[in-house]
Amino acid sequence: MGIDQVDNYLDAHRAQFEEELKALIRIPSVSAQPTHSDDVRKAAEFVRDNLRSIGVPADLIETPGHPIVYGERLDAPGKPTVLIYGHYDVQPPEPLEPWLSPPFEPTIREGNLFARGATDDKGQMFTHLKAVEAWLKTVGQLPVNVKFLIEGEEEVGGANLENYVSLNKAKLACDVAVISDTSQFAPGIPAITYGLRGLAYFELLVEGANIDLHSGTYGGAVANPLNALCQMIASLKDGDGRIQIAGFYDDVRPLEDWERQAWAKLPFDEAMYQKGLGVIGLFGEKGFSTLERSWARPTCDVHGLWGGYSGPGPKTVLPRKAGAKLSFRLVPNQDPKRVAELLKAHLKAVCPPGVTYELIEQHGAPAALVEVDTPAARAASKAIEASFGTPPVFMRGGGSIPVVGLIKTQLGVDTLLLGWGQEDDNLHGPNEKFCLADFHLGIKASAHLLAELAR
Amino acid sequence: MGIDQVDNYLDAHRAQFEEELKALIRIPSVSAQPTHSDDVRKAAEFVRDNLRSIGVPADLIETPGHPIVYGERLDAPGKPTVLIYGHYDVQPPEPLEPWLSPPFEPTIREGNLFARGATDDKGQMFTHLKAVEAWLKTVGQLPVNVKFLIEGEEEVGGANLENYVSLNKAKLACDVAVISDTSQFAPGIPAITYGLRGLAYFELLVEGANIDLHSGTYGGAVANPLNALCQMIASLKDGDGRIQIAGFYDDVRPLEDWERQAWAKLPFDEAMYQKGLGVIGLFGEKGFSTLERSWARPTCDVHGLWGGYSGPGPKTVLPRKAGAKLSFRLVPNQDPKRVAELLKAHLKAVCPPGVTYELIEQHGAPAALVEVDTPAARAASKAIEASFGTPPVFMRGGGSIPVVGLIKTQLGVDTLLLGWGQEDDNLHGPNEKFCLADFHLGIKASAHLLAELAR
Repeated sequence: MGIDQVDNYLDAHRAQFEEELKALIRIPSVSAQPTHSDDVRKAAEFVRDNLRSIGVPADLIETPGHPIVYGERLDAPGKPTVLIYGHYDVQPPEPLEPWLSPPFEPTIREGNLFARGATDDKGQMFTHLKAVEAWLKTVGQLPVNVKFLIEGEEEVGGANLENYVSLNKAKLACDVAVISDTSQFAPGIPAITYGLRGLAYFELLVEGANIDLHSGTYGGAVANPLNALCQMIASLKDGDGRIQIAGFYDDVRPLEDWERQAWAKLPFDEAMYQKGLGVIGLFGEKGFSTLERSWARPTCDVHGLWGGYSGPGPKTVLPRKAGAKLSFRLVPNQDPKRVAELLKAHLKAVCPPGVTYELIEQHGAPAALVEVDTPAARAASKAIEASFGTPPVFMRGGGSIPVVGLIKTQLGVDTLLLGWGQEDDNLHGPNEKFCLADFHLGIKASAHLLAELAR
Repeated sequence: MGIDQVDNYLDAHRAQFEEELKALIRIPSVSAQPTHSDDVRKAAEFVRDNLRSIGVPADLIETPGHPIVYGERLDAPGKPTVLIYGHYDVQPPEPLEPWLSPPFEPTIREGNLFARGATDDKGQMFTHLKAVEAWLKTVGQLPVNVKFLIEGEEEVGGANLENYVSLNKAKLACDVAVISDTSQFAPGIPAITYGLRGLAYFELLVEGANIDLHSGTYGGAVANPLNALCQMIASLKDGDGRIQIAGFYDDVRPLEDWERQAWAKLPFDEAMYQKGLGVIGLFGEKGFSTLERSWARPTCDVHGLWGGYSGPGPKTVLPRKAGAKLSFRLVPNQDPKRVAELLKAHLKAVCPPGVTYELIEQHGAPAALVEVDTPAARAASKAIEASFGTPPVFMRGGGSIPVVGLIKTQLGVDTLLLGWGQEDDNLHGPNEKFCLADFHLGIKASAHLLAELAR
C-alpha cells in the first residue's frame, strides 16, 4: 500500500516543505526586470537542485532569455507519462507601498503565506515536487513516468519556451500534462479548470510636439497627447462595456448551454464577491453573468497610463508624450494576431489629428479549452476527492496560460489544470498569498494523481 | 528736453544695467522650494536696495510667506500715478539636465541672456527700475507719480499679495497699472497685450476596487479605473476639439469682428509655427484660427495621467486607483467657480458604473480683458514706437496673470501689459532666455512711457 506510506510522509514533512517553499520565494525572480536577472537564474538553480535532491535528475536548459529547468524520472515502463509544467519567475512586486510585509520575505498570517510568487506559481508548482519526493522517499519509485518542465519566462511571455518545446517534441512526449497555476472555485470547493482566456497585450505611445509646451501659450492650438490617448482608449469600448473594434467578436465561440446552466448552479455569491472587492457595483458586458464575463467573454483593459506631471500642485504642461499599457483577454476561437490587426485598423481610424502614435505588441496567446470527459480528468477528480474530501467542480478561468495551447499544438495532449489557489490570492497584486492548508492539500492531491493515472 | 538726457543716460549705462540684472538673477529665488527661502528674501532685499539706490524710497512688506517690495516716488502732484507690478521670484529650474549653462549663472549666447528668471520676471521687471533711474539721475524727478509693487510669490499663486492689496487700497491707489510679464508678438514686432486667459485647474481621482486586481481573474466583471478615467476625460471634448460640458460656452464673450480682422493681418507664419513645435499638424476648435484658439478660446487640457504599471514589459493589473491633472483656460466672461460647478455636474453624469471619483480644485482665476482705446494705451503705444521704432500691435495672450484681475477689482484700474519677451523664451522650461536688445528697448520704452503718461 504505497499510497499510505506516501500520505504518512506528507504528514510528517509539512514544516520542511514550508521552509523550502519560503527559501524559493525569497529569491526575487522578477523576469520582467533586468536588474533581477541573476535572481531569476538563482531560482532556476534552486528548482533544479531541489529536483535532484528528491531523486529526479534535472538540468538547466539555457535559452536566449531565462533558463528552463527540465527533469525526468522514467521508471514506470508501460505506464503513462505525465508532463508537469510550472514556472519559477514572478510578477514585479510594485507598487510596494500596499504590502503589509515585504514581498520577498514570506510571512504567515492567519494560515496564509504572504509573498510575491506564493501562489503564482512557486507555491503551486512546488506541490508537484513534494508529491514526487514523497513517492521516491517512501516507495522508491513513481507509479507513472514524470517529466518536469519549469520555465522562467511565463510572466513576460517570452518565445523561448515555445522554441524549446517545438524542437524537443520526442523528449517531451507525454500522455497528459498537469499544471497547477489556477484557482479552486472557492475555499473548500476544489476545481478542475477546463478553459482559459487568451491574451493580446500592447503598449500604446502617443506623441505631439518635440518639447513639453506651456498650456497657456499653446493650449487650444496644438493637440495634447494626453487628451488624444484618452480619446483613443475611450473609443475601444461603449458605455455598456462592449468592445467597439470592428470584427472583434467575429471569431468568438458562444458559450454552450450546458456550461451556462452548470455555472449558474455554482455556489457563487455575487454580493459577497462585490463586498470582497470593495467596489460600489459590478460592471460588465450586458447579457452575461459575472462568471460568464470573467471566464468566457473577451475584455479590453488598460493596465497603466503615464505622461505629464503627477506631483503636488498645479503644473500647466502640455507634455510631448503619453503612454498606456492595455490588453485584451481573448476567448475561443479568437486569434491574438488577428486581434492585433483589428486593433491597428481601429487606432488608425480613431487617432485624432495633430499627434502620432506607436503600437507595440508585447504578448499574445490564444485561449484554451479542453475536454472534460476523459480518463485523465476522471483520475484527477478522484485524486482531488481523496485529498480535499470532495470532488472538484468543472470551471473555466479568466486568466491565460499560453503553454496549454503550446502543449496541445506541439505535443498533441490536453492539460489538466489543477488549481490549488483561491480567487482572492492577489496574484500580480500586493499581498499575494497562498493558503498553507491548500498547499498541503495540493501536494496530497498530486501524490494521489500519480497513483490514479497509473491505473 | 528731459527725455533726451534720459535717452543719453540709458545709452551710457547699458553695461551697468546688464551687470546689475545678472547679479539679481544669480540669487536662486525659487519661491516653491523651501530650501531657497533665504534666497527669496535676498532677492527681495536686492530689489529694495536697488530702488533706494536709484532714489525711490522702498521697504520690505512682511507677509506670512515671502516679502513684498514696495517703493514709491510721488513727486509729480497733479500728474497721473502709475503702479508698476512685477515679481522677483522664479520657477524651479528642474529638470536641470537640458540646461546648456547653469540656470543661476547668467550666460550670454548670441545676444540672449540665458538663466532662470531672465525674462520671467526679473529681466522684464528690472526694465522699469532702470527707466526710473535714468529720470532721477538726469532730470532729478519723475514726470508722473510711480509706485512699485514687486512680489515674491507669483510662481506659487499665494494669497498674500491679494490680502495686501485689498487691505491697502488707498496706499496703492493709481490711475493705471503697468506689468511687463508677457511677450512681444515676434522679434521686432512689439505688442500691447490687452487680454489674457484665466484658469481652472483640477485633479481627478478615480477608484475601483480596494486593491489592485488581476485582469485575468477579474477583467470583464469589474470596472477598470483607468478605462473609466479615459472615458471621463474623453467625454470632455468632441472630435472637433469642442468642449462638451453643458453650459460651458454660455458665458464666453465672442471675439469682436475688429479683433478677428486685426489678428488675421498679423504676420503669423503657421508653417513656421508648426515646424518649430515639431508637430505633424495643428489642431484646435473648428472655425477659429491658431491665434484665436490660443488667445481667445477656452481649452480643456490634461497635464498628467497616472495609475497602474508603466515599467518594462507586460503587467496585467487592474489598478485600484487612477488620476489625472487637467485644466481649462478660460476666456472673458467665464467664471472659474461656475466652470467648476459645470464640470462637477458633467462628471456626475458621465462617471461610468462601478467606480467612484473625487474632483479636487487646485487653482482658479478669471480671464482679463482691458480697453484698447484709452489714453494710457495710446501713451504706451507712442512710448513703444519711440523705443522700438515701430508701433506695437494689439494682441491677447493665452496664459494667465491673476494680478490683472486683482488690480481691476481692488483698485479699479486697467493694466497695461507691455511685454518685452519673446514667445520662445522658454519661461518655466530649461534654457529660459531674454534677448538683451529687448531688455534695453524695454527700458527705453518704459522711460518714454512715464513722459507720455504725463501729457
